[in-house]
Amino acid sequence: MNAAPAIQKLLDELERLPGIGPKSAQRIAYWILNTDAATALRLAEAIVEVKETVHFCSRCFNYAQDDVCEICASDRRDASIICVVSEPRDIPPIERTMVFKGVYHVLGGALSPMENIGPDDLHIAELLRRLVTEDVQEVVLATNPNVEGETTAAYLARIIKPLGVTVTRLASGLPVGGDLEFADEVTLGRAIESRLPL
Amino acid sequence: MNAAPAIQKLLDELERLPGIGPKSAQRIAYWILNTDAATALRLAEAIVEVKETVHFCSRCFNYAQDDVCEICASDRRDASIICVVSEPRDIPPIERTMVFKGVYHVLGGALSPMENIGPDDLHIAELLRRLVTEDVQEVVLATNPNVEGETTAAYLARIIKPLGVTVTRLASGLPVGGDLEFADEVTLGRAIESRLPL
Repeated sequence: MNAAPAIQKLLDELERLPGIGPKSAQRIAYWILNTDAATALRLAEAIVEVKETVHFCSRCFNYAQDDVCEICASDRRDASIICVVSEPRDIPPIERTMVFKGVYHVLGGALSPMENIGPDDLHIAELLRRLVTEDVQEVVLATNPNVEGETTAAYLARIIKPLGVTVTRLASGLPVGGDLEFADEVTLGRAIESRLPL
Repeated sequence: MNAAPAIQKLLDELERLPGIGPKSAQRIAYWILNTDAATALRLAEAIVEVKETVHFCSRCFNYAQDDVCEICASDRRDASIICVVSEPRDIPPIERTMVFKGVYHVLGGALSPMENIGPDDLHIAELLRRLVTEDVQEVVLATNPNVEGETTAAYLARIIKPLGVTVTRLASGLPVGGDLEFADEVTLGRAIESRLPL
């Protein structure tokens, strides 16, 4: 390729990023080369800063800069409803809906016999501790609608229900604005099973 | 969004990158948060390094870390053929073809009366100096096949031909592997005009 070594190194690092192939990496590298130094350095510093200052919330295991995350620290959140997700990255899409006003608990993965991930590998003990020490009314299971996510949700429901806490699961069904014609059979089947009275 | 400030800052910086929207930025930010510190810091350092060490080749105005770029410095390149491009980012696609064995000259833009970019704003004087001081047989004009690029190519052809140097232009025509049915009229028209004897 005959690129300067520093450019080749940047291309190599950019290509590691998710969703970035060789062409996107090249486009971004030339943008970085072409932009003013201050803008490029702000990006480099932002990367360093998240790695140095962001850790896990001591309460819910979301990413946080303080001891607890912004959501746990907020007094505008309803701490009596805990939404359980697999990963911190699952929180922003739920937040964007602006429908959920409760707090979260991040498991740090999902049960997977295939990958040898059992209950002790997830933050399940910490969740149970929250359920007995905090005044929690409802746990919303928002693990992914795939095999591992469903297995995890079923396991959690089984151990949480005896504690007298309401356990709910995100609904599966047709995407809003979607076309019935293009729905896959499993999703459509679930939508029929979960049909609601009008 | 309730993200930690450092994460929000990283998202803001990532969204400035070309081709990176809010969802890609989020995917990349969570990847950076999730990856080991060494990998993330290598990316940050690669960004800093290109901004600190990469400048323009003193001969052809490609990006370079030494006084001249890797291509100008190579003894396996034919310095008697100069390929003229608008920007450094136009060089990698030409290099990838492995068809061109000559050297380059980067103009740093294209003529554009609309944007008030004239010959003095481009590295045209430096190109002419190379043509009279170096033993150049051919100049291949590889400016973009759009209005500015064609204008620039026509201008350069007019001033270079009197120097007794062969001037050529990249062929326009049907993309290889493309479908005649889907070719735009201008490209197809150009392909007909430039038809070759078999």
